[in-house]
Amino acid sequence: MNETIQEGKDVLLYLDGRRTYLVRVRAGQNFHTHKGFLRLDDLIGKQFGEKVQTNLGVTFTMLKPSMRDYVLKMLRKTQIIYPKDMALIILYANIGSGSQVVEAGTGSGALASILAYHVKPDGRIYSYEIREEFLEIAKKNLERAGVAEYVELKNKDITQEIDEENVDAVVLDLAAPWLVVPHAYKALKGGGNFASFSPTIDQVVKTVEALEEHGFVDIEAIECMVRRLQVKRGQTRPETRMIGHTGYLVFARKTRTP
Amino acid sequence: MNETIQEGKDVLLYLDGRRTYLVRVRAGQNFHTHKGFLRLDDLIGKQFGEKVQTNLGVTFTMLKPSMRDYVLKMLRKTQIIYPKDMALIILYANIGSGSQVVEAGTGSGALASILAYHVKPDGRIYSYEIREEFLEIAKKNLERAGVAEYVELKNKDITQEIDEENVDAVVLDLAAPWLVVPHAYKALKGGGNFASFSPTIDQVVKTVEALEEHGFVDIEAIECMVRRLQVKRGQTRPETRMIGHTGYLVFARKTRTP
Amino acid sequence: MNETIQEGKDVLLYLDGRRTYLVRVRAGQNFHTHKGFLRLDDLIGKQFGEKVQTNLGVTFTMLKPSMRDYVLKMLRKTQIIYPKDMALIILYANIGSGSQVVEAGTGSGALASILAYHVKPDGRIYSYEIREEFLEIAKKNLERAGVAEYVELKNKDITQEIDEENVDAVVLDLAAPWLVVPHAYKALKGGGNFASFSPTIDQVVKTVEALEEHGFVDIEAIECMVRRLQVKRGQTRPETRMIGHTGYLVFARKTRTP
Amino acid sequence: MNETIQEGKDVLLYLDGRRTYLVRVRAGQNFHTHKGFLRLDDLIGKQFGEKVQTNLGVTFTMLKPSMRDYVLKMLRKTQIIYPKDMALIILYANIGSGSQVVEAGTGSGALASILAYHVKPDGRIYSYEIREEFLEIAKKNLERAGVAEYVELKNKDITQEIDEENVDAVVLDLAAPWLVVPHAYKALKGGGNFASFSPTIDQVVKTVEALEEHGFVDIEAIECMVRRLQVKRGQTRPETRMIGHTGYLVFARKTRTP
Repeated sequence: MNETIQEGKDVLLYLDGRRTYLVRVRAGQNFHTHKGFLRLDDLIGKQFGEKVQTNLGVTFTMLKPSMRDYVLKMLRKTQIIYPKDMALIILYANIGSGSQVVEAGTGSGALASILAYHVKPDGRIYSYEIREEFLEIAKKNLERAGVAEYVELKNKDITQEIDEENVDAVVLDLAAPWLVVPHAYKALKGGGNFASFSPTIDQVVKTVEALEEHGFVDIEAIECMVRRLQVKRGQTRPETRMIGHTGYLVFARKTRTP
Repeated sequence: MNETIQEGKDVLLYLDGRRTYLVRVRAGQNFHTHKGFLRLDDLIGKQFGEKVQTNLGVTFTMLKPSMRDYVLKMLRKTQIIYPKDMALIILYANIGSGSQVVEAGTGSGALASILAYHVKPDGRIYSYEIREEFLEIAKKNLERAGVAEYVELKNKDITQEIDEENVDAVVLDLAAPWLVVPHAYKALKGGGNFASFSPTIDQVVKTVEALEEHGFVDIEAIECMVRRLQVKRGQTRPETRMIGHTGYLVFARKTRTP
Repeated sequence: MNETIQEGKDVLLYLDGRRTYLVRVRAGQNFHTHKGFLRLDDLIGKQFGEKVQTNLGVTFTMLKPSMRDYVLKMLRKTQIIYPKDMALIILYANIGSGSQVVEAGTGSGALASILAYHVKPDGRIYSYEIREEFLEIAKKNLERAGVAEYVELKNKDITQEIDEENVDAVVLDLAAPWLVVPHAYKALKGGGNFASFSPTIDQVVKTVEALEEHGFVDIEAIECMVRRLQVKRGQTRPETRMIGHTGYLVFARKTRTP
Repeated sequence: MNETIQEGKDVLLYLDGRRTYLVRVRAGQNFHTHKGFLRLDDLIGKQFGEKVQTNLGVTFTMLKPSMRDYVLKMLRKTQIIYPKDMALIILYANIGSGSQVVEAGTGSGALASILAYHVKPDGRIYSYEIREEFLEIAKKNLERAGVAEYVELKNKDITQEIDEENVDAVVLDLAAPWLVVPHAYKALKGGGNFASFSPTIDQVVKTVEALEEHGFVDIEAIECMVRRLQVKRGQTRPETRMIGHTGYLVFARKTRTP
């Protein structure tokens, strides 16, 4: 069903591929851009996909924010995992509606948000973060993205212990994932999925070694490179600049006889 | 909760990264491998993650098949989209639990299976295929993967018409996606997501042009390259051979004023 | 033999991987950097590889400029081919000492310089450029790089005609290389090498088609991606940003029976 | 000048991109292919670029072998460096006509051949190999490629010592390049170029560390990926399979004050 834009809802204002703004609609307020301002009252009652003009006559398209929009627009204190890497984690670790997932570190909550979106309505994310100040940010980001109810934020050190048992997946984005491997082994159900994101080769080597030692099989380490195409009839070409490296992904599955 | 392997269920028998077998457990039957045979009776009552030996003493790990396993093991008559590309489609097109998605062509049902896994329990996939013989295969594959109930298979030509309205996403893997763009526009809700997979540059150019002409914004074309690492302390390196190209992905969002 | 730095010679002043300066040594002059100035008199009589300090005590290493340094530091009005692509052209087109090579367009002379360095002392580069103002720049750049004597600059339109015959290779970096293919065929000796650099797919397609029509064989089109590693024990990783695309390279060889 | 094919000369018989044969022309002999045989007498007196038919009427083009052809067709006992990596070594290490280059290990002589082709006529390659049996193969390969006179093969362990002094470049393709770094430092002239090829990350890290400790600057580590395009109007796309990794290249320049 088509959705009407309402007070209190978020809108992604799209100008072009490089300029988008994530805005919460508040009656009586204006939103200022470098192309003039929009009266948010004008948005209320419109449908997603419609267009709106600033006082300077510049047109924005009103889009419903995707999870990727939320993630890319999040308040953050640290680098977040890129959507391309989150996508592979979800599919390779078999995370779907109903999955029980342990995740760490929470950071700004970007990865937890995406995971939550994919396990709802019956799954749950248990997200560990040792730095309390990050949990505040994460809480706001999860609420904004509309997935807070599926995430349990935990101010605990996951390298010490995991409380949950028989979970479907453990997903890690932290400096020393190999320290979590024994706890992940305990927390996972038989055949459960381990996934870890790390920027450096040495992190990958240590994590893979820990997985081999702790009864995991089907261990694989990959990297994913995404390149954009500039599409124009007669002049199509890949873009000059690209992100050459974000990090490596390590996946594995738990056996019951380490 | 841990799951017990039962008669009629599927098991992924894992020997190593290159040798895995997807088997349906049938009492009284044997499963033959080049490393000896397994009595399937021996599997029943075991838990996923446990190990089992062939008559020749070779050990296999019994894993619960992931959606990626189902897809990679599917009966198929045609090339299927690689999991890496499916993963990006799901995340970039914002497909999650509850999404209503039109998909074509069904082919062997690989993409439909993965989409179904991510929209369940309340979402639905409307999968179009003009070649009736493929629908038979797809039906079996969807049933095997346990997601048939979320997919409506339609023996119709999607380049002629889409029946559904106000869907969240249209996902295409067919030879002439640009012919579907006008129908996708009608079928999508405002701000809805378009995604298309195509091996050649020319398909990308034609699709992007059609999207520009039919009121889509936020059009982007990308390619995703995945490379595996061989991880071994002191000898870590990327693998020599890789899949250099599968296809390009095109994404866009519908505006309401074409 | 070790070389002494002399008046009138060039020195590459190396601070770090990002900050290098190509300087001609002039007695009595100073060279100013953001790290203080160097008295060029201090350089004279030193050997390459030695170090020198600015008045602020910052140390630079004095290196003998390589051809790659000359090319990267050239005065230029247009984008030049990257060294990685030049390298492949030289090897794949079998250009070596003694080769006779037709090249176009001259542009700032970067490609001509590198080619000249590899055909000296007995080979020759015939470099075509239709825009006279570029030839001035190219002349200076070739002289600075010390290879002007091996290059004949020609203010002619290579899409109209090539004067030379029986050359070993034709190397193109221009907007419409396919227009040069018939002339390249005439100019090349039997089995001679054609090489062309183009940023877009469409240029590649048109060039390959022209080569097929005009009696070339062993036609191949490639792209070359170079990624840097950040090397640091325990923290090694590829660099985040890279140049994702410069252009495609097309190679072919002439048969004598088109 | 056009060259006539003569008794005792090599010809590359080209059928298509995948099927080429490097043949020495011998009067009175036949050359057998899976497409019939060629009488080599028929080749004598022809010009490169002309075509010849087998007794079964299949046409081959007679091409003059390039250095890349020689390298790819070499007798070999080990993996050789790919031409793409050789190309970058030549350009980044500034190797040109007249360069004095120390190289190790010789192996089948592939890298030495290419280097020799680029330093002739006045430069010289000093090629170290500890395994005597390889030197026999290398000698034959260098002679076949016509560059033996520019290469001095040395049956010595380069990790112990380098005899030469004031060389322009040291180029390494061996298991422990870091052990050669101190000797390379002594052998190189001030500002001279170091280049090393290694498949694994750990080799790169150890080599870079040794270079940092021994007075080298401008140290860079890169990898080069080459992907082929399938070019066909309306169906152009990158090839499905590619070589994802050959090795990393490390470059550096010598300072005189380690």
